[in-house]
Amino acid sequence: MRILSVALLAALSSSVYAVEGMWQPHQLKALAEDIEAKGLALDPQKIGDLQSHPLNAVVGLGFCTASFVSPTGLVVTNHHCAYGTIQYNSKPERNLLRDGFLAKTFGEELPGEPNARVYVTESITDVSSKLRKGLPDGAKNGLARFRAIDERQKALVKDCEKAGGYRCDVYVFHGGASYFLVKLMEIRDVRLVYNPTEAVGKFGGDTDNWIWPRHTGDFSFLRAYVGPDGKPADYSTSNVPYRPKSFLKISQTGVSDGDFVMIAGYPGRTNRYRLSDEVNDAISFTYPTQIARVREILDVIASNSKDRPDAAIKYAATVASLNNGLKNFEGNRDGFAKFDAVALKQNEEQKILAWAEKNKPAGVTAYRDLKALITEVRATRERDQILGYLNQSGITTTARTLYRINIEREKPDAKREYGFQTRDEARIEGGLRQLDKRWDPKVDRALMEYVLNRYLMLPETQRVPELDRWLGVNGSENQLKSKLDSLFAQSKLGDLDTRLQLFRAGRKAIESASDPALQMAVALMPATLRIEQENKTRAGRETMLRPVWMDTRIAYASSIGKQVYPDANNSLRVTYGNVMGYAPKDGLQMLPFTYLEGIVEKHTGSGEFDATKAQLDVISAKRFGPYSSRTPTGTQSVPVNFLSDLDITGGNSGSPTLNSKGELVGLAFDGNYEAISSGWVFNPKLTRTIHVDSRYMLWLMDEVDQADNLLKEMVLEQ
Amino acid sequence: MRILSVALLAALSSSVYAVEGMWQPHQLKALAEDIEAKGLALDPQKIGDLQSHPLNAVVGLGFCTASFVSPTGLVVTNHHCAYGTIQYNSKPERNLLRDGFLAKTFGEELPGEPNARVYVTESITDVSSKLRKGLPDGAKNGLARFRAIDERQKALVKDCEKAGGYRCDVYVFHGGASYFLVKLMEIRDVRLVYNPTEAVGKFGGDTDNWIWPRHTGDFSFLRAYVGPDGKPADYSTSNVPYRPKSFLKISQTGVSDGDFVMIAGYPGRTNRYRLSDEVNDAISFTYPTQIARVREILDVIASNSKDRPDAAIKYAATVASLNNGLKNFEGNRDGFAKFDAVALKQNEEQKILAWAEKNKPAGVTAYRDLKALITEVRATRERDQILGYLNQSGITTTARTLYRINIEREKPDAKREYGFQTRDEARIEGGLRQLDKRWDPKVDRALMEYVLNRYLMLPETQRVPELDRWLGVNGSENQLKSKLDSLFAQSKLGDLDTRLQLFRAGRKAIESASDPALQMAVALMPATLRIEQENKTRAGRETMLRPVWMDTRIAYASSIGKQVYPDANNSLRVTYGNVMGYAPKDGLQMLPFTYLEGIVEKHTGSGEFDATKAQLDVISAKRFGPYSSRTPTGTQSVPVNFLSDLDITGGNSGSPTLNSKGELVGLAFDGNYEAISSGWVFNPKLTRTIHVDSRYMLWLMDEVDQADNLLKEMVLEQ
Repeated sequence: MRILSVALLAALSSSVYAVEGMWQPHQLKALAEDIEAKGLALDPQKIGDLQSHPLNAVVGLGFCTASFVSPTGLVVTNHHCAYGTIQYNSKPERNLLRDGFLAKTFGEELPGEPNARVYVTESITDVSSKLRKGLPDGAKNGLARFRAIDERQKALVKDCEKAGGYRCDVYVFHGGASYFLVKLMEIRDVRLVYNPTEAVGKFGGDTDNWIWPRHTGDFSFLRAYVGPDGKPADYSTSNVPYRPKSFLKISQTGVSDGDFVMIAGYPGRTNRYRLSDEVNDAISFTYPTQIARVREILDVIASNSKDRPDAAIKYAATVASLNNGLKNFEGNRDGFAKFDAVALKQNEEQKILAWAEKNKPAGVTAYRDLKALITEVRATRERDQILGYLNQSGITTTARTLYRINIEREKPDAKREYGFQTRDEARIEGGLRQLDKRWDPKVDRALMEYVLNRYLMLPETQRVPELDRWLGVNGSENQLKSKLDSLFAQSKLGDLDTRLQLFRAGRKAIESASDPALQMAVALMPATLRIEQENKTRAGRETMLRPVWMDTRIAYASSIGKQVYPDANNSLRVTYGNVMGYAPKDGLQMLPFTYLEGIVEKHTGSGEFDATKAQLDVISAKRFGPYSSRTPTGTQSVPVNFLSDLDITGGNSGSPTLNSKGELVGLAFDGNYEAISSGWVFNPKLTRTIHVDSRYMLWLMDEVDQADNLLKEMVLEQ
Repeated sequence: MRILSVALLAALSSSVYAVEGMWQPHQLKALAEDIEAKGLALDPQKIGDLQSHPLNAVVGLGFCTASFVSPTGLVVTNHHCAYGTIQYNSKPERNLLRDGFLAKTFGEELPGEPNARVYVTESITDVSSKLRKGLPDGAKNGLARFRAIDERQKALVKDCEKAGGYRCDVYVFHGGASYFLVKLMEIRDVRLVYNPTEAVGKFGGDTDNWIWPRHTGDFSFLRAYVGPDGKPADYSTSNVPYRPKSFLKISQTGVSDGDFVMIAGYPGRTNRYRLSDEVNDAISFTYPTQIARVREILDVIASNSKDRPDAAIKYAATVASLNNGLKNFEGNRDGFAKFDAVALKQNEEQKILAWAEKNKPAGVTAYRDLKALITEVRATRERDQILGYLNQSGITTTARTLYRINIEREKPDAKREYGFQTRDEARIEGGLRQLDKRWDPKVDRALMEYVLNRYLMLPETQRVPELDRWLGVNGSENQLKSKLDSLFAQSKLGDLDTRLQLFRAGRKAIESASDPALQMAVALMPATLRIEQENKTRAGRETMLRPVWMDTRIAYASSIGKQVYPDANNSLRVTYGNVMGYAPKDGLQMLPFTYLEGIVEKHTGSGEFDATKAQLDVISAKRFGPYSSRTPTGTQSVPVNFLSDLDITGGNSGSPTLNSKGELVGLAFDGNYEAISSGWVFNPKLTRTIHVDSRYMLWLMDEVDQADNLLKEMVLEQ
């Protein structure tokens, strides 16, 4: 069976199926012929130019993608990307999440949540030579190599951010084969302009998350504001709408099955070039154990917040996030069950190795050494997983953060640990302030007890001496209980003022504190730093090996006339392809479009499928405006969501979907369930991107929500 | 929402969607134009002729349909229709169910199970005038009217069966608007010729039951044998293969999406012309309560056969049957949840009544009186449901049957209760013999206790005095327990010889017996007979009303140029239409064909999805023979199952599916889940028949099972 499936998949990848590839903009020139063949009507040589339309209309939100859609800084993104800002402005007496919101004038627009940002890409500079040349030998001293790279990155970032108003970061490609310095203008005054009701924007809720057929109106509008001088500024009534270099026109006629579409956006992370051994570890260890642990953690939270609505509310976001992660882990598990990903990867590696033997022998050595490194990591993977969960506990993490920031603050900024530099302090302080909202001592204690009990099950070889000592020699469950009793009885970290005072108290004060949570953090810090250093040493070695192996892969691909795109790393990418349904199994066809009538079908009148009467009435009256098209049964209706074979991942949410003329025909907001495991192995037959259709957006704004001012502000294309 | 759905459904029923209709063969002439429009290439005027090809090749098996496919009596039907005979011939050392069976010569063919029959339709005679004229007035004396009809039917049957070798029955159409006497030649020597492995014939098991996409090879071959004189005879080695008047040719090229198909067969029962009140009762009472009761009964069986494999095996068939029923009840519930069937029916009735006011006022009165009758039935529906379950208990039913047959045997045959006549005695005796195989005292006792406890919950008004007396006045649970203790401790009905002796013991012997199960039967018989008589009285009244209402419906339909087919009643019907997929919901399309690769996709290597290595190897090697066609992805493969919009129900299983030239292109074996509630209201958008494709049958026989002898015996058409 397994062999057969691999053969099938291999056959498919050479056929007409979906186009894998999250391309760096500069790579697009080399793909011009293919892009034109897929249907682009613009000049494929220019499409990758950051300074030109349409790419210069695409912006980041930090965790999502968005785009300018008017000359006065109007931004469109997903409803779930604007969620924080909508929630921030919602009150019991004015519930914008539930009821939707429309500012009829600029003056009615509402301030974004404190961390709301719009990032406009200013430049992307190849700094590979600055990062790769003259480094210490990682095989001999991995740590020195790691530190050298780290210092060079920090120096580049510091220099780049000097001017103010910019956020810079060095992005690592192919595990270190190349580095790019990205300079982003950081717009800090971002306001809420329009969001549909939650019944539209989150229609289907968690049930429909990752699911096709889909009927979610996952879109909202924000506006970027800058100071009167045109530069980023904090929120102020004297700020003015930002005037972007360009903006996208909205298509009123949308796309049809088979049409060309492309997406520019900021995909977060993929693992497409991981070795077969790493894929094997993910399948045989990571996902199964994570699924088991997360389920147990959810049980612990549920049983300890039962009949305690206050605690339940505090952990609601954590539970939602754990459930989201669980669905992802399960999606990976289910995806991997459909074919032999390890054999597929091994097959691929054998081809590359056979070629490298003759043409690039260094690649063969790097491959072998990488495998050895992977084997090393396995030795403590159970420990590392458990410690990871311990670090998610409220009080432990708070104590460790407080200690660490005070340690790091003693160093010059450039030497401080990544995440604990001056530029990070505001974010850390924000976290300390918000602990109260998502922390309950009873739940936290139960979680710590669960995690530490799992820790005690580890074999001797994986135990951490410092933690063993803290727990008491040969720590039994009973000692653990009394340890936690006193920790939770005596710690004052639940108090906001105490936390804020400790934030700037200095290293000495923490080390001499009597708070048992802080004492635990102090006791464990040597272990944390030791493990961190081991990881850095290994990472330093990896920066010797992974780039060589990736250079080999790229050279091999080049020898057979193929381009290699890098794994996603939050940097700007372009993916292109076509509107396309798929066959999840024999006899079943997922059609590429859904329509308004599907909302009526799913509507139950409560919970996640509770369309508004206003919307149902307009559907029932068939008031489709100029936004309808012909459905498969020959009737007319407005398309709601559509599928394409584009290659996206988390971070791409909100990305504008462009047609062959570069007009906005929708927004990417999800993948199908089968796409989850495509983070590791792209299955062209089953991987699909889900878009909200521009016609649905326009129809809703026009016929249901009367957002005439926005329709007038934007440029609509027939 | 509900209103909207009704409007939608109404719109659909006048569109191009599926063709509702289980037509009596004689009705087809009037439909000739429509049949030709759908694509029939034969003469539509002749297609309904019982004595001609293809209808005279279609036969009944009693509970399924089948057809002759060779000049020497070869019969093809579903695997699940031949199941009893395959099981009958299976032994641990030669498991034909698991391993399949192929007789390479006539001599190797195996005897059918004792009740295996092939019924060849000899004639269908309209006897309506004999049944409807000069009957007592049902409004005054329902019982007299019922008895008069009953006696006339029995007389017709007796006269018809006089010759011997025939089975005759009077079939009631439209609740008594017309009656037809059907004369069937009853072939009693039916042998097993070929069945695929269970991994093919039952692929997907209960999981895939009622499910599309489907990949089940639900077909098997039998052969009809007669005495050397050509007349039906008991099994004998001197019997010879029956030579049918005609037989079907098998298509090797099959059908494509949209092609004409038709089916002739014996659908069991539908409720398409029930009044809106009856539909309402089914939705609000029957299905919900049946679902609850059946689940409870399944729990009782499970908990009382736990860790008792012997008991579990004895109740395996009962559990399978209950689960099958449960899926049906749930399918009805789920189907009815999708639209407002009651409003749809009311709407239909209002139109007919409005027309009848002017044209056929008797219909208005009949409708009103029928509604009153339905209200009467409601008064005891909880009681009737409970008594129904009591009648399914092993020992109670056995005792009641033994008493009843001895009572009935005292009457002249024509006066005996239907089901207890001379012609029924062999079947009753067979049941008594087989009790051991499906009866366990502990489980039976628990079931009786469950049912009687439910009985005790009935309101006073629905209690049965005789049963109350038997249980002890104000029967409490404790009295019930001791009553059952002594019944199960003392009854000897678990003993086969005792049962057989009592079968012919005579009424007096039963009435004076000391066996507590018999004493219970004797004590309750007056109640049974009284309720039976009440039901007959009501049935007699109904035969006054239902035909008038149906005559009105037919006249109304005729006034708008439409034919009316009768509800299914186990008599021969023809349904025609086209190969067609469906859209179960917006964005999802069920394709009309499945292919071999779908078997590989579903194969898990165990349980219900455990394809044989032999089959997988042939698929993997793409040895498709001349049976492949182009799949939706452009590859070649062998179609396994397909969908059509034909109108079938239980009893149609095994029906030959014919193409436009009358060649066999498949066998009907199931409906989709959405089709279950079509027993009440035909939803043309969602109701589909599932067929096994003739190409899959031929491919399997040719490439996997080497059934060359059968391929040679049959006539294959290109």
